[in-house]
Amino acid sequence: MFTLESLSEKLDRLAAFTAPGPGVTRLVYDDAWCEAHLWLQAEARALGLAATCDAVGNLWLHNPELPPGARVIALGSHLDTVKRGGRFDGAYGTIAALLLAAELRGSGFPVAAFVTCEEEGSRFPMALTGVRGLLGRLVPSECEGARDANGVTWGEALAAARARGCAAPAPAAGAAVPRLFDAARQLELHIEQGPVLESWGDKLAVVDRIAGYRRLRARLTGEARHAGTTPMERRHDALAAAAEIVLAAESLGRATGAPGVATAGFASAEPGLYNVVPGAATLGLEVRHTEAEALARMERELGEAARAIAQRRGVAIELETKAGEEPTPLSEELAAQALALAAGMAIPHRRMASGAGHDTMAFAQAGVPALMLFVPSRGGISHSPDELTKARDLWVGAAFARELLAAWRQELA
Amino acid sequence: MFTLESLSEKLDRLAAFTAPGPGVTRLVYDDAWCEAHLWLQAEARALGLAATCDAVGNLWLHNPELPPGARVIALGSHLDTVKRGGRFDGAYGTIAALLLAAELRGSGFPVAAFVTCEEEGSRFPMALTGVRGLLGRLVPSECEGARDANGVTWGEALAAARARGCAAPAPAAGAAVPRLFDAARQLELHIEQGPVLESWGDKLAVVDRIAGYRRLRARLTGEARHAGTTPMERRHDALAAAAEIVLAAESLGRATGAPGVATAGFASAEPGLYNVVPGAATLGLEVRHTEAEALARMERELGEAARAIAQRRGVAIELETKAGEEPTPLSEELAAQALALAAGMAIPHRRMASGAGHDTMAFAQAGVPALMLFVPSRGGISHSPDELTKARDLWVGAAFARELLAAWRQELA
Repeated sequence: MFTLESLSEKLDRLAAFTAPGPGVTRLVYDDAWCEAHLWLQAEARALGLAATCDAVGNLWLHNPELPPGARVIALGSHLDTVKRGGRFDGAYGTIAALLLAAELRGSGFPVAAFVTCEEEGSRFPMALTGVRGLLGRLVPSECEGARDANGVTWGEALAAARARGCAAPAPAAGAAVPRLFDAARQLELHIEQGPVLESWGDKLAVVDRIAGYRRLRARLTGEARHAGTTPMERRHDALAAAAEIVLAAESLGRATGAPGVATAGFASAEPGLYNVVPGAATLGLEVRHTEAEALARMERELGEAARAIAQRRGVAIELETKAGEEPTPLSEELAAQALALAAGMAIPHRRMASGAGHDTMAFAQAGVPALMLFVPSRGGISHSPDELTKARDLWVGAAFARELLAAWRQELA
Repeated sequence: MFTLESLSEKLDRLAAFTAPGPGVTRLVYDDAWCEAHLWLQAEARALGLAATCDAVGNLWLHNPELPPGARVIALGSHLDTVKRGGRFDGAYGTIAALLLAAELRGSGFPVAAFVTCEEEGSRFPMALTGVRGLLGRLVPSECEGARDANGVTWGEALAAARARGCAAPAPAAGAAVPRLFDAARQLELHIEQGPVLESWGDKLAVVDRIAGYRRLRARLTGEARHAGTTPMERRHDALAAAAEIVLAAESLGRATGAPGVATAGFASAEPGLYNVVPGAATLGLEVRHTEAEALARMERELGEAARAIAQRRGVAIELETKAGEEPTPLSEELAAQALALAAGMAIPHRRMASGAGHDTMAFAQAGVPALMLFVPSRGGISHSPDELTKARDLWVGAAFARELLAAWRQELA
């Protein structure tokens, strides 16, 4: 039942649930998402599993004999995608979990597949909302008013998905989403979304930490002046200041070195004409690191550099921290065990940190012993229609997860 | 008749013709422009002048006895403004010309005030269209289809203005705007729009050259990658490349020195998210210089620097020249004469080049001996509601122009 072919075939079928356009677009509660959700439920039932929704549309695929609230080995990933994303991000861990939960259904080892409704924050500005619900840490009535790009509220979108059978009834106002199962351990299979495994020729990564991040918005205010009549030495050019900060962020990322990175993701200038020295500029900056102290240092140094640049140029700067997440260590015990197992299986592998956030972060932060496994991403490309992991690489990761679960079963017996 | 008070009073009245909002917005052929145009015609008639429109709405305010096609001393500026512009850009030269033409009406010296309909290119993307018409170098039927931001064509806007009495009948299709008078010499009074006069404490500039410019659009294509999972050394960051080019432009402007300037006026990155290394970036670059060779060198060096930066970073670059104008020398004889006169009058003054383009460029390019005079701009601010020149400084410039015209009269008698 659990073969390379079944994995690839189900991934193909899941990828077909998408909004029109290139790649895969499956935003939480939209048509494609609902259809994929119902298809997953049907697939699980066909494999002898029960499919149980929680109140916000997370899904557990599990042995029907497991009682509500049972302690389970939670294995899974997310159903939603970014806009024009790829076929593997979230989908891989979801399908592998479905197949492994089905295979282990009669084993007596309580492996349950979880499928979070939302991880990306690509429809509503609330990444990781799904897993917070799964863990009993989300109060839906607090999210209801959030709106998507079309003005639809989260509450309206969820109610529509619920009417289609993709979520259980809502809890009372002010109450958290009831938790269906209690995770004793958690495992997520995912594509790397970066170039590290491919460039080292490795087939597997045991992920022992997830990087934290800080997102800063810089607003620079100089003096808009005629570009033809204002001598260079009389300018307070907000875009030139922003450009220097972009390069300072890059230098900081390089000087910090892996696993630290720093990125300027967007920039704009006002009024934005060829013949006007920019009077204002906006910049989006992000730093990431797997160590809390190093992350704090990067944020502080980037801020200091930006302020010094602005001051030297006579440009005013406002720096606002828009979002952040602390670095999250995963289970060192589970990581060490997985590394030993991979070595024993002679799979080319490495220990690494995840630079991207994942559902697994929320499990670890909730105190669940948690682990992630990565398989290679061709060219490091993700969040793109060009996202690709070879079928054999997908299968190696899932087959390794199967062996790791067997080791856990022995250990916990 | 020609007093500080009359100059200020008429400037105040002209500034009242504006679309709603801060500053002055008088775009060619719009309501405020038409009303200002009709007011100017009435003012001229009240001062004993004839007001004659050409086929695109340029206006000559002149001794009614001047026969069509007469050789005149052309003195004037433009009626249109940028959006949310100031009270003096164009308006100063227009009102000063009206008052001087009226004062000299009975003198026998054929001074005629010209008021170009459009200089800024702020409604249709066609700067200096008015003066090209005035000089018989514009074929209206070739411009008719250009559209403003609301989709109104130039032809429709002009027809509406014509119906209100702000333009003469259209010439036959394919024919140029008939020239009403022949300029023997041309003089334009204008605010500096830069900080040079103010910072030197000078009250007058004799402008002997107008800078040329080149506008380049750079399109950079790198690789959009996950900002959390892509190590710094694996990135091809289009925004970081753009930032380096912004600073290279600034360095080029500084190294070239006055009258050379270089500006990056706009920048954007795609996809423009905190967590994605920008895969593409767009940049607007401009270089200006008063010497053709130096301008060509600046354009070449900026292109070379941009290509070298892109190549080193493994980012593709397309550089497109979007617009350009050659530097325009004005009349050296008239400049020398004006400088001697200013020295004789003990007006603190300097010879300078104009970094901005002006109607005068078109006269000089058409072979008319041409000259500009600048008065100080407070803080160098222009194209802004904050544009300000003190009433006394405005008057000094106009009074100097009166003396210069007297010198011309003696010389040409």
